[in-house]
Amino acid sequence: MASEETLIERVRRRFPIALNGLQVGIGDDAAVLSAGGKSEFVITADAFLENVHFLRKAHPPKVVGYKALARATSDIAAMGARPKCFFLTLGLPAACTRKWFDDFLGGMARAAGRFGLQLAGGDTTKYATVVISLTVLGEIDRGRAILRSGARPGDLLCVSGTLGEAELGWRLVQKNWHTRKGRARLLQKHLYPEPRLALGQWLAANRLATSMIDTSDGLSTDLGHVCRASGVGAIVWAPKIPAVEVPSDLRRLGLEPLRLALHGGEDYELLFTVPRKLARRLPRKAGGVSMSIIGEITEERKVVLVDAGGHESTLKPMGWDPFR
Amino acid sequence: MASEETLIERVRRRFPIALNGLQVGIGDDAAVLSAGGKSEFVITADAFLENVHFLRKAHPPKVVGYKALARATSDIAAMGARPKCFFLTLGLPAACTRKWFDDFLGGMARAAGRFGLQLAGGDTTKYATVVISLTVLGEIDRGRAILRSGARPGDLLCVSGTLGEAELGWRLVQKNWHTRKGRARLLQKHLYPEPRLALGQWLAANRLATSMIDTSDGLSTDLGHVCRASGVGAIVWAPKIPAVEVPSDLRRLGLEPLRLALHGGEDYELLFTVPRKLARRLPRKAGGVSMSIIGEITEERKVVLVDAGGHESTLKPMGWDPFR
Repeated sequence: MASEETLIERVRRRFPIALNGLQVGIGDDAAVLSAGGKSEFVITADAFLENVHFLRKAHPPKVVGYKALARATSDIAAMGARPKCFFLTLGLPAACTRKWFDDFLGGMARAAGRFGLQLAGGDTTKYATVVISLTVLGEIDRGRAILRSGARPGDLLCVSGTLGEAELGWRLVQKNWHTRKGRARLLQKHLYPEPRLALGQWLAANRLATSMIDTSDGLSTDLGHVCRASGVGAIVWAPKIPAVEVPSDLRRLGLEPLRLALHGGEDYELLFTVPRKLARRLPRKAGGVSMSIIGEITEERKVVLVDAGGHESTLKPMGWDPFR
Repeated sequence: MASEETLIERVRRRFPIALNGLQVGIGDDAAVLSAGGKSEFVITADAFLENVHFLRKAHPPKVVGYKALARATSDIAAMGARPKCFFLTLGLPAACTRKWFDDFLGGMARAAGRFGLQLAGGDTTKYATVVISLTVLGEIDRGRAILRSGARPGDLLCVSGTLGEAELGWRLVQKNWHTRKGRARLLQKHLYPEPRLALGQWLAANRLATSMIDTSDGLSTDLGHVCRASGVGAIVWAPKIPAVEVPSDLRRLGLEPLRLALHGGEDYELLFTVPRKLARRLPRKAGGVSMSIIGEITEERKVVLVDAGGHESTLKPMGWDPFR
């Protein structure tokens, strides 16, 4: 099969958007649906599948439950919306014990409580593997949703938190290095990502961001989505990227901070653009998380990485693609 | 694992309903969400999984695409609502060709066109099997959604169309008898179920039905859902059930019309209750489909089947349970 992007393109051709009340459809973090009144609904759907997104042996059920909902809710954060309710469809192997299921629900309930989400419906079926699909619905004041398509040349490129932390954790799990002493803290972001809801809502309320996406696939890929949707390019200043700290023994094994930060997925930070003249209104921290200015939007439709020595290279999307 | 009902009960205990604006949550065909204005949103989520709900060898991709969306949309019909838009999450094996995918999308687009649905978003991932999850959103005038919980003693029990047709088709496919001559027409309902959207909306607009459900799991199981939700029982008159016609050669092989009609799943007809004094306003056909009065609601909380000779027996839920 082709890349995810090609698939989505074919889906989009087959299902052109022409809906009354549907402000934004396929191709943003979430759809925006007019509710008729002074608010809009923001809706996103996300799959979380055993052996692709998680391993039943390595990831305890409470992590599976928590992370499934955190990932999907991050799309609500990326629109600047307030989470409201969610729908769960679940395929569950006969071998999953009552304890597995209860721990799974416990993790999901913990996430729901933290994010202010109510379970509103769903569907459960026996299946060979654990397959989870979540639809999350949020609410936002009319016209305030922050889309991928609003970046303009000259805007500054900003990102919250630290990049590459989740990828570092995932690599440790894949290589089975995560059980060694002192490694638990390196797994935190991989196991319990934190959708940046407060920051997203703060940006929407203050009308500071012209575009926004969450870093689910990795900076290089997600920035590509924003640039394509906005019809612009970008320059990224490598020394400004808030990259993960990697212990020296792991760096020697090839886990390089800048590569992890550029291409590592699942950080669920917010990547957004701010008009240069509004940048002074951007605090160092908002919604409890730090913010970094890492580049700027350009007219020319390509994404360029500039290193500390001023050397320029093309930044290709090399993050997560479920079809690669 | 336990039965689906037990699982749902555990989910419900973990996620109590306390949402502002959420009129109906887990346990009905769909959730009802206030949009603030004069209409409400009705939302349902449904999984359609390879090797459980369909077989890639027996079911062509256009059937998979059509039926996945028809099933989910039937829950919107069962609330009396108008379909609006849907979200698709999809896991797709690398072995699925471009043609398979295009035919799948074609079948889904045909269903979307028929039902008046717009694709609004989703998520695609590579996976070992085809796993589909759909969230469908509909709209209805405030307070008009027909719930499972409104049946009252004395109400007449009605059903649309014919029961057992889909189960007959599924049995033929399972036994690989479906390729024989003259069998194609017996498969129609199994392959291309028809959500009763016009009938559901007609019943809601005319305030005729006190409760409603779609027959996705089979009459015996779905009637059980209505009775439990409403705190009532029912008498079903066996000779009144509009059962599938089964060719004599298949009847000799054990495919018995009444059993198929009582316990066969996936007909996606509407099962609803009507106050006795309004029954005269019920035409023989509405929304292009015939209607049959097949019993009545009783105070005593059990479901009884009465045969042509007046003999009574308990009607146990023996329809589809994904965990049996």
